[in-house]
Amino acid sequence: FKSYTITLLPGDGIGPEVVSIAKNALLRVSSIEGFELKFKEMPMGGAALDLTGVPLPEDTLSAAKDSDAVLLGAIGGYKWDNNEKHLKPETGLLQLREGLKVFANLRPATVLPQLVDASTLKKEVAEGVDLMVVRELTGGIYFGKPRGLSTNEFGEECGFNTEVYAAHEIDRIARVAFETARRRRGKLCSVDKANVLEASMLWRRRVEKLASEYPDVELSHMYVDNAAMQLVRNPKQFDTIVTNNIFGDILSDEASMITGSIGMLPSASLGESGPGLFEPIHGSAPDIAGQDKANPLATVLSAGMLLKYGLGEEKAAQRLDSAVLDTLNRGFRTGDIYSAGLVRYFLISFL
Amino acid sequence: FKSYTITLLPGDGIGPEVVSIAKNALLRVSSIEGFELKFKEMPMGGAALDLTGVPLPEDTLSAAKDSDAVLLGAIGGYKWDNNEKHLKPETGLLQLREGLKVFANLRPATVLPQLVDASTLKKEVAEGVDLMVVRELTGGIYFGKPRGLSTNEFGEECGFNTEVYAAHEIDRIARVAFETARRRRGKLCSVDKANVLEASMLWRRRVEKLASEYPDVELSHMYVDNAAMQLVRNPKQFDTIVTNNIFGDILSDEASMITGSIGMLPSASLGESGPGLFEPIHGSAPDIAGQDKANPLATVLSAGMLLKYGLGEEKAAQRLDSAVLDTLNRGFRTGDIYSAGLVRYFLISFL
Ligand SMILES: CC(C)[C@H](C(=O)O)[C@@H](O)C(=O)O
Ligand SMILES: CC(C)[C@H](C(=O)O)[C@@H](O)C(=O)O
Repeated sequence: FKSYTITLLPGDGIGPEVVSIAKNALLRVSSIEGFELKFKEMPMGGAALDLTGVPLPEDTLSAAKDSDAVLLGAIGGYKWDNNEKHLKPETGLLQLREGLKVFANLRPATVLPQLVDASTLKKEVAEGVDLMVVRELTGGIYFGKPRGLSTNEFGEECGFNTEVYAAHEIDRIARVAFETARRRRGKLCSVDKANVLEASMLWRRRVEKLASEYPDVELSHMYVDNAAMQLVRNPKQFDTIVTNNIFGDILSDEASMITGSIGMLPSASLGESGPGLFEPIHGSAPDIAGQDKANPLATVLSAGMLLKYGLGEEKAAQRLDSAVLDTLNRGFRTGDIYSAGLVRYFLISFL
Repeated sequence: FKSYTITLLPGDGIGPEVVSIAKNALLRVSSIEGFELKFKEMPMGGAALDLTGVPLPEDTLSAAKDSDAVLLGAIGGYKWDNNEKHLKPETGLLQLREGLKVFANLRPATVLPQLVDASTLKKEVAEGVDLMVVRELTGGIYFGKPRGLSTNEFGEECGFNTEVYAAHEIDRIARVAFETARRRRGKLCSVDKANVLEASMLWRRRVEKLASEYPDVELSHMYVDNAAMQLVRNPKQFDTIVTNNIFGDILSDEASMITGSIGMLPSASLGESGPGLFEPIHGSAPDIAGQDKANPLATVLSAGMLLKYGLGEEKAAQRLDSAVLDTLNRGFRTGDIYSAGLVRYFLISFL
């Protein structure tokens, strides 16, 4: 009889309400599929700041490390926007990623037939989009040193950060990307700015080098500015995209908006070993928190990724994913106006 | 009797053919408006590499510096793609920007009523888009030091770049942006990643500080990942956007693709004083070079920006811009299949 421990980090804004729905769905699915889930809820982000004074308490990180997988709602809100850097909710999230060593962030952007109208792109451009952004998550300019604010030789204020990648950091994310592409449609596009940045030149060279180990994957390279254009021009040309932390931040958000269904998009962050981190890609939406308006399906689909990538419970993952599709087919077609209560009802009944 | 010297840098691919059409239009417009233009054509990019071994010969840079304005076609091509960094056409372009000290890059993205169908965005989302990206062009990660490829303490290959901004660099681009917004619809959105990067925190703080000098401009801030989404979701919300070099590279290309008319979009790069640099935002498109297929209107509109921002010849600029509109109204509505010969014919006849 299998048993897993899941750390729940509801976080801020709509985080708690969407996590609670996903938790119930996970419970139900585990009892159907015959394994046990134990949940441990811990504070994180603004909620942790208010409670403990830091955005990622030590207890939260160690609970996360000790569990089999971590499900995060969302963090942040106006209240903490002007906090100093080390007291920002976002800093807690970066510490969590670093602490769990989850260097590979998988962000699918899929246009479901039921939701094609939600995209601002023309139907013929949006329909059938099904891509995966593999974003490097624990390196690059997010973590590079030196960084800081200082006074330069002319007595002038300066802000600086370092974009840096070592060969092994590129290799390991590239491997995840090649493997991902292999299990999808076999096409990998590596995005960089190798015509300007040395960090990107190394990136391109290492990715190129690994390609010989994946002869079944068709590799191409694209500059980041062009990728930002191509996602708008013809997103269907992409299968799997691999890129660095900051470009991945930008392009995965752009890709998600192209689907028009940001309330539907999950993400998984994985390391070499140890628990993965699963979270919807949307934010904490403080404006609509507590009003039963937030679309919980991105978090439910994140729980699906948790079952699949985090626990290896593929059947349970499939059950959850199809309950989401059934719920959509029941008529929940807009991403904006929602009755979370109704979604909850149908979701559970379709499991 | 006024006389100006213009340096022409046709460059590579379709560069020469589009520059030649813009040159003729400039000549015609100058004779109508009663000033003289002297042209000096110099090699640049891949063409210069083939001719002289470097992508920006000293003679080219000094001719550019000595002139009243510089009109560039496009640079780059497969042939030079694998060159070492200092022998890339792109490096020549960066050296030109640095040499001319053109720190402010203005990139309009406008959806003309005649061309609204060219956008991949739904008509109601695309129509009426009229925004301007003000991109910092001579600082940030493009030029920051230290940079390079090296071996780290573990004997491993590393690539690194430095994102760095000093207060005065932020202030001067912010001023250009506030002035630009003031002459447009009075809304400025500053884009950064201040929740993660110190360079962005300083950026936000300096822009915020200057805002009090422009009480007539409504300032907002947005994270770059959100901006990449909002451009897809609702581009009409933007009037003027100001951002750093790399974010500006990505967002201005995304914005241009949103218009669907990349063959129609000009740009201006301006410094504190000295000649400005004017160029279409499209690339050198080697595939269609020499076939009379390239849309020359982006370069013609760049010549319009040259007249306006570079020479202060507002009337001539307006004449050129309306000839472009008349040419479009004559029926040239697609950005892809073009008869440059016909465009040339109508353009000149409408001047
Ligand atoms: C909140 C922020 C620090 C974070 C990031 O930039 O990584 C977010 O935008 C994301 O993409 O998960
Ligand atoms: C060619 C390249 C160096 C350049 C840049 O990145 O600035 C181009 O993309 C642009 O936007 O003008």
